[in-house]
Amino acid sequence: MSGLFLKIIKGEIPSYKVYEDENTFAFLDINPAAKGHTLVIPKKEVDLLWDLENKDYRAVLDSAKRIATAIQKSVECKRVGMAVVGLEVPHAHVHLIPLNTMSDFSFSNKLQFSEEEFKSIQKRIVRNL
Amino acid sequence: MSGLFLKIIKGEIPSYKVYEDENTFAFLDINPAAKGHTLVIPKKEVDLLWDLENKDYRAVLDSAKRIATAIQKSVECKRVGMAVVGLEVPHAHVHLIPLNTMSDFSFSNKLQFSEEEFKSIQKRIVRNL
Repeated sequence: MSGLFLKIIKGEIPSYKVYEDENTFAFLDINPAAKGHTLVIPKKEVDLLWDLENKDYRAVLDSAKRIATAIQKSVECKRVGMAVVGLEVPHAHVHLIPLNTMSDFSFSNKLQFSEEEFKSIQKRIVRNL
Repeated sequence: MSGLFLKIIKGEIPSYKVYEDENTFAFLDINPAAKGHTLVIPKKEVDLLWDLENKDYRAVLDSAKRIATAIQKSVECKRVGMAVVGLEVPHAHVHLIPLNTMSDFSFSNKLQFSEEEFKSIQKRIVRNL
């Protein structure tokens, strides 16, 4: 799965992008654990979040804070959780997951949304940024 | 559960502390999902991580990076995951969890360690900081 997120950043693979700046990129998770589940990534392909240079690490977490606040305004949830797991794609990524109960945090939860629904969530998050 | 982490910071409730600086505090989770599971918290009691001022938010995440790197050197794991859930204690906290498989990330996993074992893990992490 190496290079997958680079292709998403370049637009070679389509995504529901919600945010982009010089160092970071964010898009809706296509296999969401909850409505509004978003991935925030550095533009550099580094496997472990902890191995990013401090500058890039802070950029990712600063974007995560900004986007989490927007997600909170965009979907009904008690709070927005954060997770870094990364046993699959070797490009550091931060999950932002709207939570109502602990089970929303489970990665075995995979919701299905139509293109319409994804676009509507994307639009709301972008508007609240 | 309000005030619980403030009592831990003040030492009124004992903990296996691994790190402390002006703005942040870190200690072993007493109900660990994996060996080395650590909580990093701001010294200020703010419920949501996203509601911390940028300065305090960065302090917590900077400490998390430093401690995650030390945990990685201290216990056998593929990588150290991060989670922010916070549906229980209303004091923002970052979980750092050593991962070998996806199931180590489950919060239903509660391992039991003796005081000896906790102290030995604590010592190793502190040494690797």
